[in-house]
Amino acid sequence: MTEIASFQCPTRVHFGEGAAGVLPGIVTGAGWSRVLLVVDPALVGGAVHARLVADLAQAGARVTEYAGIDPEPKDTNVTGALDAMERGTEAIVVLGGGSAIDVAKAVGIVATNGGAIADYEGIEAFSTAPLPLVAIPTTAGTGSEVSGAAVITDTARRVKMAIRHARFGPATHAILDPAAVATAPAHVALHAGVDAFVHAFESYLSKLANPFTDAWNLRAMRLIARNLRPFVANRANTGAALNMLCGSSMAAMSFGTTGTGNVHCMAMAIGGLYPVPHGLANAVCLPHVAEFNFIAAPDRYAQVAEAMGEDVRGLDELAAGRRAIAAIRAICEDLSVPSRFRDIGVEETALEEIADRCFALDYNRWNPRQTSREDFLQLLRRGF
Amino acid sequence: MTEIASFQCPTRVHFGEGAAGVLPGIVTGAGWSRVLLVVDPALVGGAVHARLVADLAQAGARVTEYAGIDPEPKDTNVTGALDAMERGTEAIVVLGGGSAIDVAKAVGIVATNGGAIADYEGIEAFSTAPLPLVAIPTTAGTGSEVSGAAVITDTARRVKMAIRHARFGPATHAILDPAAVATAPAHVALHAGVDAFVHAFESYLSKLANPFTDAWNLRAMRLIARNLRPFVANRANTGAALNMLCGSSMAAMSFGTTGTGNVHCMAMAIGGLYPVPHGLANAVCLPHVAEFNFIAAPDRYAQVAEAMGEDVRGLDELAAGRRAIAAIRAICEDLSVPSRFRDIGVEETALEEIADRCFALDYNRWNPRQTSREDFLQLLRRGF
Repeated sequence: MTEIASFQCPTRVHFGEGAAGVLPGIVTGAGWSRVLLVVDPALVGGAVHARLVADLAQAGARVTEYAGIDPEPKDTNVTGALDAMERGTEAIVVLGGGSAIDVAKAVGIVATNGGAIADYEGIEAFSTAPLPLVAIPTTAGTGSEVSGAAVITDTARRVKMAIRHARFGPATHAILDPAAVATAPAHVALHAGVDAFVHAFESYLSKLANPFTDAWNLRAMRLIARNLRPFVANRANTGAALNMLCGSSMAAMSFGTTGTGNVHCMAMAIGGLYPVPHGLANAVCLPHVAEFNFIAAPDRYAQVAEAMGEDVRGLDELAAGRRAIAAIRAICEDLSVPSRFRDIGVEETALEEIADRCFALDYNRWNPRQTSREDFLQLLRRGF
Repeated sequence: MTEIASFQCPTRVHFGEGAAGVLPGIVTGAGWSRVLLVVDPALVGGAVHARLVADLAQAGARVTEYAGIDPEPKDTNVTGALDAMERGTEAIVVLGGGSAIDVAKAVGIVATNGGAIADYEGIEAFSTAPLPLVAIPTTAGTGSEVSGAAVITDTARRVKMAIRHARFGPATHAILDPAAVATAPAHVALHAGVDAFVHAFESYLSKLANPFTDAWNLRAMRLIARNLRPFVANRANTGAALNMLCGSSMAAMSFGTTGTGNVHCMAMAIGGLYPVPHGLANAVCLPHVAEFNFIAAPDRYAQVAEAMGEDVRGLDELAAGRRAIAAIRAICEDLSVPSRFRDIGVEETALEEIADRCFALDYNRWNPRQTSREDFLQLLRRGF
């Protein structure tokens, strides 16, 4: 645990079956009369979208819609939304996954701070509160609905920009409604769900973990490990969906403080070279990294095993800790996650470069086991 | 779990050894030049107080001090502070226990909303944000530093007023620094610590418990159960103190949403008739209520036992759950908490009236076992 740390969750998180029903009350309570509705194109025309439109109308709000969201959101999506937005717009409502939520955050920042989103790259690079934002995630998930960060691609420079602000970054309200994730395709549910588990797992093992993030992360792992299988099997399973949404939000409240670890590090390096979905890259890296990091914190692994529902009664700490690795492997197997890097298109000739990139990303700030370039190369070779 | 619930922690919580050192940065970052410093009279002249005064001066803030805080804070404490406060004061810093923090909250509300604190009794009865507040708790604790509520006695009407506001009630910053609790007397540490445990225990068992409050409460019980003994033994034990502070804040983030239960109910009824410290009344009621409520949620009790550090390996759920009651009794015995109501001055002739009052308080909204007036009477008789 770091010497002095801090924590905050300025977002009001509403959750439960039918939670989207709180939206009209939020709109009328705040007195918003003009609202920009950002919608993931995959959700347009669905039941949840239709209900939101009806609820906003019932609340007396004039609504402009924008659905130009790329899977990896771009600055052009942000300018597109700003062009579409009416003058006098007082708030943004977003229905979508992490990409749509990130665009909505960026639009809110530029709307009140002026300029272009590239002006605000980095940490706390803007000083005026963005437009109020109500985020309704349709994946479980990136946790963008409670995090202070947005990732937007700068199309001119061809780089991903991270825009972070602890106080002004997070949405004003997040609404976790299982109906909003019910139509997600199985592979999206799987990739987003594993991403959420990895957030919690790596945040819990981080060098910067603290008592507050431990509380969130252990609960998040418990909820995700026990609900990911039934949720991938049937996204309309309301109980599983709600637990997945709560778990992914909890994890996202933590990793902004603690950072993540080698899974995210390797997934980012691989994602920079191959068009692999972030969640899938995470899923492939997860068991390899889980095994590698074990010696750094067997005691913490024992807690992970217990949180994941493993029966660790009668086991000593080392044996209990190893059960976490087994539990992770079992999830990956049950959900048919490919086990080798070659299965997701990684080429043997690229391993050296991936190891270089991993080491350069400097996740040793957070990852519990110090990892050299050679360590990364060995991990990649062993899992190739 | 209730159908739709919500959660928020607008307070930025700073924690760690030496965390009070973040204060100058907060003051200069916000640009505050005039600050009201509310100090618990017991802390005036101590090392932590002296350091705060020096830090505020170093940050360039002009400071007015107010130390007129009664143990059960009164509206006259609030008006006293308002009279002392300079025109143009931009923020309040408070060093003290729940009473001092509650007074500071009330001062901030009246300063920006006008009138008197009695005007704002109830839920969300004011609409302007109060003065920014930095709370440094010196007990672990009421959790007032992160809760949205203040309790102030109306001296004219002789009633305790609760002033609640989910968004505007909580402090802007809370600083959990073990140095601030190092000089607390042992009995204060004990009473405040048991109060914090009871917050977490009753919130976890509440009918309104949800996945977010579960995360906080299980961790809070873990931290408090494992640190209360060494902390009472030596309040200068930095590690134990920090864990107690974190645990009491976590619990306080939860019980505003879930309510509490029969322990608080009975302690409040007893406190209305006898001058017993709230934490002591809680401590005496706790084992009796823990036993009574067991049948409502043996599965949850099993989780409590595990969180408290009981070895429940190989036990079935019922047996594991009963270990929670044993663990609670062991804490009370080790810390010499009186076990009978008569030990804290309750008279046998008053039991009927206490039972009436308990039932009238309607904690059946939250308490997991429906409790009749007769049940309360039996609890009181059995524990007399």
